[in-house]
Amino acid sequence: MKLIVQNIAEKFSTFSDLWSPKIIGELYGQHVKLARLKGEFVRHKHELEDELFWVIEGVLKIVLDDHVITLGPGEMVTIPKGVYHQPIAEEEVKVVLFEPISTLNTGDALGSNLTKYKLDRLDD
Amino acid sequence: MKLIVQNIAEKFSTFSDLWSPKIIGELYGQHVKLARLKGEFVRHKHELEDELFWVIEGVLKIVLDDHVITLGPGEMVTIPKGVYHQPIAEEEVKVVLFEPISTLNTGDALGSNLTKYKLDRLDD
Repeated sequence: MKLIVQNIAEKFSTFSDLWSPKIIGELYGQHVKLARLKGEFVRHKHELEDELFWVIEGVLKIVLDDHVITLGPGEMVTIPKGVYHQPIAEEEVKVVLFEPISTLNTGDALGSNLTKYKLDRLDD
Repeated sequence: MKLIVQNIAEKFSTFSDLWSPKIIGELYGQHVKLARLKGEFVRHKHELEDELFWVIEGVLKIVLDDHVITLGPGEMVTIPKGVYHQPIAEEEVKVVLFEPISTLNTGDALGSNLTKYKLDRLDD
C-alpha cells in the first residue's frame, strides 16, 4: 500500500482562491482541508459538525455571539456544532480545517454565494 | 460559551515525556494529541482507527511492511486502520496526532510496556 505524504506548504502553493477549502486528507469520516481566507466570511453554524481551525499563517478572527477569538500561527480552536461563528481575516490567512466529511463551508447560511458544494481534492 | 484556544508550541513546552500523547482537543469522536517521540516505538496496527501524523519539528520515519515513510516539519500522512507501522525518531520529534478517541497508542501490541491506557489532557 502506497501512502501519500502531504507537505502543507507545498499544497498551499498549488492554489490561490479564497474561501474555497481543498481536501488534503481523509480519515474515519473526517476531512483535513486547507483554505486561504481573506475578508469577512458569512456568519453561520454547523448543525451537526464540530470544526477545528488551525492557523498556519496570518491572524484569523472568529466572531462568536458573545466574544471574539483571535488565532495566530500555531494556534487552533474547535468550534462546536451549533455555535454561530464568523471568520474574518484582515490580511490573508492560511488555515487547516479538520471536520466531518459532511461539513458544508457556509453551514446553515445556504443563501450565500460563498457556499462550495464540491471541493477540490489535493490528495490524489 | 468560552472556547479554548490552543497554542501548539506553548502546549509542547508543558511536557517532556516521550511516547506519551497528550490530548489537546476533542471533536466529533476524534482527539487531537501532541506527542514527543524519540527512539524506536513498537510495531503495531490499529484495528479500527485511521491515524494522522503531522510532524511539527524533527524528522519521523514510519516503517511500513513494504516501505518507509519519512516526514519532515509540515508534512503529514494518514496511516489507515489495519496497516502495521513502526514510528522511529533518531532525534526528538514533535508530532500532532488526529485519531479516534478509541485509539490506543500501541494498537495491537498490548504486551508492550509503552502502552498508555490513560492520557493526560492539556485542554482543560
